Amino acid sequence: MNRDAIGIFDSGIGGLTVAAEIARRLPAEDIIYLGDTARLPYGTKSAATVTRYAERAMELLLRYPVKAVVVACNTATAHALPTLRELTDMPVLGVVEPGARAAAEATRTGRIGITGTEATIRSEAYHRAILARLPDAQLTAMAWPLLVPLAEEGWLDHPVTRLTAETYLGPMVAAGVDTLVLGCTHYPVFKTLIASVLRERFGREDVVLVDSAEAVTTELAALIEDQDLAAPERAGRRSFFCTDAPERFIRVGSTFLPGGDLGSATAIDL
Amino acid sequence: MNRDAIGIFDSGIGGLTVAAEIARRLPAEDIIYLGDTARLPYGTKSAATVTRYAERAMELLLRYPVKAVVVACNTATAHALPTLRELTDMPVLGVVEPGARAAAEATRTGRIGITGTEATIRSEAYHRAILARLPDAQLTAMAWPLLVPLAEEGWLDHPVTRLTAETYLGPMVAAGVDTLVLGCTHYPVFKTLIASVLRERFGREDVVLVDSAEAVTTELAALIEDQDLAAPERAGRRSFFCTDAPERFIRVGSTFLPGGDLGSATAIDL
Repeated sequence: MNRDAIGIFDSGIGGLTVAAEIARRLPAEDIIYLGDTARLPYGTKSAATVTRYAERAMELLLRYPVKAVVVACNTATAHALPTLRELTDMPVLGVVEPGARAAAEATRTGRIGITGTEATIRSEAYHRAILARLPDAQLTAMAWPLLVPLAEEGWLDHPVTRLTAETYLGPMVAAGVDTLVLGCTHYPVFKTLIASVLRERFGREDVVLVDSAEAVTTELAALIEDQDLAAPERAGRRSFFCTDAPERFIRVGSTFLPGGDLGSATAIDL
Repeated sequence: MNRDAIGIFDSGIGGLTVAAEIARRLPAEDIIYLGDTARLPYGTKSAATVTRYAERAMELLLRYPVKAVVVACNTATAHALPTLRELTDMPVLGVVEPGARAAAEATRTGRIGITGTEATIRSEAYHRAILARLPDAQLTAMAWPLLVPLAEEGWLDHPVTRLTAETYLGPMVAAGVDTLVLGCTHYPVFKTLIASVLRERFGREDVVLVDSAEAVTTELAALIEDQDLAAPERAGRRSFFCTDAPERFIRVGSTFLPGGDLGSATAIDL
């Protein structure tokens, strides 16, 4: 048993989809979430810059009493996970491995689509992780940068978003993928819309959408059980920190949580 | 006469619309452009963070031989111009005052629309600058955050962009504006599309679009003449610096320049 919190680190707001999934599946756990809103987005920046920013943010998070850290940002995971693991002895989970494992298990044809930020796609981290499990997989990768600002604009089911999804999904459907990795923590808020566009626009009901929030939570739950880290039965507390503009973090972030309203968030200095 | 360069500072890539206009109107002038791509965008961040980032970037720019600085980022101008002016004795021009002046001169009814990033709109810098000239002006302000990623995606005349422009222009047309300030340096790349949507979707041919790149260049040209700062007749050189990911800066930035290709860009450390 361990009363410390699960630490979640993200470049900004998107990782709240991971926080929401962890809160749903592990309701007794305290959660301390840090969004690096002063330096977001990581997704258009270089590997060196992403790593430097992620290291500094992780150091901030480690000042709090946490027992395990989830790097809920695909870009930070793809570029900086080994560096971040060197900062602490506690378990540090990224989102890429669990997502890749879920995709490799879900595919029937080996044709897998990978989506994410420019930096995540350029890193080829999902390519490597999937091919390590399924060397014959045929991968189609594509950056979907507009989904992040569309999510932050709150246009979750807007005609503009639907048309953007049609544009982005076209090459994936043409490549015949049967599994699609949503490799950015913002994307799960569009899961219903993506499934609906696949069905209605492309007649595809059979594409499995891999949500790394779900995949990493499964891994986290197993790790907590294996290492006997579970909190006692209770209602876990959630604390939110960001490095800039807490009003915006609360306003935009609340639309990412089922049930809305994340309450308060505290700004901490870089 | 003065052989030093015009320094242009921007949060990233959008200010290249200003650089292009200055190069067109003042072809003999050398231009040194610095885009703070490691910390972009400024538009979703707080006033304090924008000011801190802008100060550091401006200090970098001032290491080069420049005779005047244009702050080509509306967000940095709106929040940090007085602070940036304290860093040097040379002339420092922002984009808000020239844009506000052009809008106040263009309007016939006093109904003016103001668009920009969230941070620019929240600053109310355009409100103050326009009302100082035209106290009875009726202002309608609205953040148009999606135009920045749409420009960087290169979707300059894409159906998604057209639908986004229709959504954003609706409230401006409903408010009866006859002048619209494009208060973000990314937006001028959509001038043709915005005019076309106003005409074809809303039957409005009479709305004046104020492009702050043009407005600030007019002011810069006057200042150079007044203070006898002009370069000798020659073909001015252009140098581009950014604080991160020069490949992306070149690739995306080249789509912002009439004639394309900005050549090379050099990454400098923060």
